[in-house]
Amino acid sequence: MEKLSRNSRMVAITKTLLENPNRVIGLNTFSELLNAAKSTISEDIVIVREVLEKLSMGRVETISGAAGGIKYISGIGEEQRKGFANELCEKLKDSSRVVPGNFIFMTDVMYNPYIISRAGVILSSFFDKSKVDYVVTVETKGIPLAYEVARNLGVQLVIVRRDNKVTEGPTVTINYVSGSSGRIQQMSLSKRSLKTGSKCIFIDDFMKGGGTAKGIIDLLKEFESDLVGIGVLVDNIEAEKKLIKEYVSIVDLRGVSDDGEVNMAPSKFFE
Amino acid sequence: MEKLSRNSRMVAITKTLLENPNRVIGLNTFSELLNAAKSTISEDIVIVREVLEKLSMGRVETISGAAGGIKYISGIGEEQRKGFANELCEKLKDSSRVVPGNFIFMTDVMYNPYIISRAGVILSSFFDKSKVDYVVTVETKGIPLAYEVARNLGVQLVIVRRDNKVTEGPTVTINYVSGSSGRIQQMSLSKRSLKTGSKCIFIDDFMKGGGTAKGIIDLLKEFESDLVGIGVLVDNIEAEKKLIKEYVSIVDLRGVSDDGEVNMAPSKFFE
Repeated sequence: MEKLSRNSRMVAITKTLLENPNRVIGLNTFSELLNAAKSTISEDIVIVREVLEKLSMGRVETISGAAGGIKYISGIGEEQRKGFANELCEKLKDSSRVVPGNFIFMTDVMYNPYIISRAGVILSSFFDKSKVDYVVTVETKGIPLAYEVARNLGVQLVIVRRDNKVTEGPTVTINYVSGSSGRIQQMSLSKRSLKTGSKCIFIDDFMKGGGTAKGIIDLLKEFESDLVGIGVLVDNIEAEKKLIKEYVSIVDLRGVSDDGEVNMAPSKFFE
Repeated sequence: MEKLSRNSRMVAITKTLLENPNRVIGLNTFSELLNAAKSTISEDIVIVREVLEKLSMGRVETISGAAGGIKYISGIGEEQRKGFANELCEKLKDSSRVVPGNFIFMTDVMYNPYIISRAGVILSSFFDKSKVDYVVTVETKGIPLAYEVARNLGVQLVIVRRDNKVTEGPTVTINYVSGSSGRIQQMSLSKRSLKTGSKCIFIDDFMKGGGTAKGIIDLLKEFESDLVGIGVLVDNIEAEKKLIKEYVSIVDLRGVSDDGEVNMAPSKFFE
């Protein structure tokens, strides 16, 4: 291939990094893709790193050693983070979202790639310094968000099911008590889904009493694995007693009034 | 903000385009973000377009008119597409994947962001010329893939449920007959999830008899909406009669022998 200009290499390097968040890419990969010397690529990367930092668009880290290279850690600036949390509140506060039973219809938001891709970057940034092996969620509404967090952290997603399917092979099933309703529910995970001795984070759409998160901790114990973090999009801070103390959230739900007004604000992480 | 060099602008423009596939971005957005004249940005975009095309990394389209701007259409080159289909086959053919009942355990692949983000680009490229309003899937295994296709097409994801939940508001439920087992099953969709008169594509992990796809067509009819395309990761071409004729797939499953050998090859779209 003919040689490319530095301008052109910038495009290709940026694209390759962005498509592989938190994965180490050797300089050789760029060198071969772009038909350029490694020293040239090194200079290119300095520019990419500087501009991403200047525009608060994430960061590029250098990993030295034989398996070394660079990796892109996704991130967004302080102002955009706060702007996102505020916009999300405005969207969710709409009283036409309140459905019978005083629940808030959030499905359209949870399945909107434009919103969830940003929420995924924000939630993943709470965990990008921990060593995480898996992002775990329980079906169904939190799956796109958990997928985005897994993609940004460059790790495997694990989806816990409510039932067990023939295509999953042997599964481990536990019973747990829902924190808010007190009802006994079930969760199942294929034995092949998770290696023992893993560190996991749990991502979900909504936190109420924390029973589901507690169930995940118990399920992970069956795999001799640990839960090292929890992140949700919406935290119902009205829930009387929480079984879980430590977690991060983007917005706080402070209740729905009888006439359908939704009280919601950015969580303490976005003040 | 100080002015940035062209090299630096390349990084920021590429990142913004990649994070907003199939969404029109006005030149003003770049002009403000980068503190540069629109004429300068236009020149930048010519370079971005050329290098993406040269490296088969997708394309940039110009939309003229008052609401105009540019948009990025994701894509990968012919060689990488074929390479991906071959690698996927190799991964899925592993006989240790065969679980009791001669099913193939594919969950780890379906929930692997590194694999699914590439599969999503490939499947979305079959539909990027159609006007699509929604990407529809049915829970659970196909959700990450369907999410990626929706993200790449810049449209909303819709997830059809097996049951109906209190948080979904009023739902439409239909019964359908599974194409392979002949069993009657149920699918539900919240009335708020889909606008009437929409054009949808259906994305799933696996196609066997086509009963699920047929069910989706019937469900969409209840929303006065049409299914205009179907894409799956794996097509079981052994299934005797298919209820659905037109669809795209990445790999063909040609059967699992009694001693656990998996016969699999790239589909006709990757020959």
